[in-house]
Amino acid sequence: MEKPLILVTNDDGITAPGIRALVEVASQLGEVVVVAPDSPQSGMGHAITVSSPIRLHPVDVFEGLTAYECSGTPADCVKLARHVVLKDKSPDLCVSGINHGSNASINIIYSGTMSAAMEASLEGIPSIGFSLLDYSHNANFEAGKPFIQKIMAWVLAHGMEQGSLLNVNIPNLPAESIKGLKVCRQADARWVEEFTEAVDPRGQKYYWLTGRFVNDDKGEDTDIWALENDYISIVPSMHDLTNYRAMKGLKGLEGQ
Amino acid sequence: MEKPLILVTNDDGITAPGIRALVEVASQLGEVVVVAPDSPQSGMGHAITVSSPIRLHPVDVFEGLTAYECSGTPADCVKLARHVVLKDKSPDLCVSGINHGSNASINIIYSGTMSAAMEASLEGIPSIGFSLLDYSHNANFEAGKPFIQKIMAWVLAHGMEQGSLLNVNIPNLPAESIKGLKVCRQADARWVEEFTEAVDPRGQKYYWLTGRFVNDDKGEDTDIWALENDYISIVPSMHDLTNYRAMKGLKGLEGQ
Repeated sequence: MEKPLILVTNDDGITAPGIRALVEVASQLGEVVVVAPDSPQSGMGHAITVSSPIRLHPVDVFEGLTAYECSGTPADCVKLARHVVLKDKSPDLCVSGINHGSNASINIIYSGTMSAAMEASLEGIPSIGFSLLDYSHNANFEAGKPFIQKIMAWVLAHGMEQGSLLNVNIPNLPAESIKGLKVCRQADARWVEEFTEAVDPRGQKYYWLTGRFVNDDKGEDTDIWALENDYISIVPSMHDLTNYRAMKGLKGLEGQ
Repeated sequence: MEKPLILVTNDDGITAPGIRALVEVASQLGEVVVVAPDSPQSGMGHAITVSSPIRLHPVDVFEGLTAYECSGTPADCVKLARHVVLKDKSPDLCVSGINHGSNASINIIYSGTMSAAMEASLEGIPSIGFSLLDYSHNANFEAGKPFIQKIMAWVLAHGMEQGSLLNVNIPNLPAESIKGLKVCRQADARWVEEFTEAVDPRGQKYYWLTGRFVNDDKGEDTDIWALENDYISIVPSMHDLTNYRAMKGLKGLEGQ
């Protein structure tokens, strides 16, 4: 049987330890092609590069694997992988990450890691974004690896509903403390912003974004609950943003 | 009665004709504050600026109105408006646009205009993104104005469900040809990418993103259908991306 074709990308850049861990796991399950940003792209949301050219270069950073670094965003990487590198051959799976830091709850909408996975899902490719709840460069990705492998193998075996993707977050715990996998909904949490105001060396004022993550959603079916209770959270997500519940209440507007 | 406070932003930049049209309409309904990017930010998706400082300067481009230009993304503009310009006073409404070009269907996920509206909805502010189906700089925004005013007045009077925002797209037609407002779902359409490959003046290869918009969703309840049939489309949208339908099918993965 032919090995499945797995596209690997991320938003922390092709040299980040997280993508190396993901490439290792993916290589045990299929033929791996890597197309990832040449520099960190965190917080890029679903940005695409439309007003400037994009560079794409083969690099030899994963032994024996086809890998390209790209000057664009994570979403650009998926588009270029599909249409230029793979010449419109569709991968059986796209995995993005492992992100250095959480993409649980509302972080999905700011996340380059998840935008790459969403771009793949738009192209009809089953896709998964993986994140570890440790922002540090030398985060330990070992404990999550067996679980990542299980999730990837399950998706390769069962496929994925059209238009869906998975948002997987891994608590920063040793392997023996992780209780297992939990299918969840996205917690209704948010960032409470604060801006640091300061003055630059030329005397000009500037602002720097910071914030606190606040979760008032006390449901025990959310990704935040799962992570706080030592589970790996799996949120099936989608790119149809229609709020179907709200449609009826808006009908009065049509007569206006 | 106190006038409602309306925050106006966009992604085409503070000097774009589209935001001027929106400011005109908003000024008839309330007290307007403008915080918009100092340069075009199209295709920025829900990007936020975390790794560099952001500049914010008062500008005198709308007669008699408080207006600031911001070096960040549309989502940054909303954050700064709320927490720095308005000092945590919450606007009664946030409107973004009028975008030069369509944000119907899947374009919502790539759209800076809609990311600003989504950021406002995350902050609990009723919000609406407006787009006109004309990409040109000298697009004619006149025909849409009475409809935009109706939609804004309706939302100010009726409020909006928590977590919702409206994605409004306006066909590029004279006023007498617009049939009215239609509440819709997001069409399941997509971009089929093509990359132009070329060589720069230094002999280096580059790629430039282009593409065709393809709609295989033949439903007559979609935004694309409404626009093709001369209606203004209104899609209630949301930031909860959970695919609830897909949760059950994934339960088998939990036992892994």
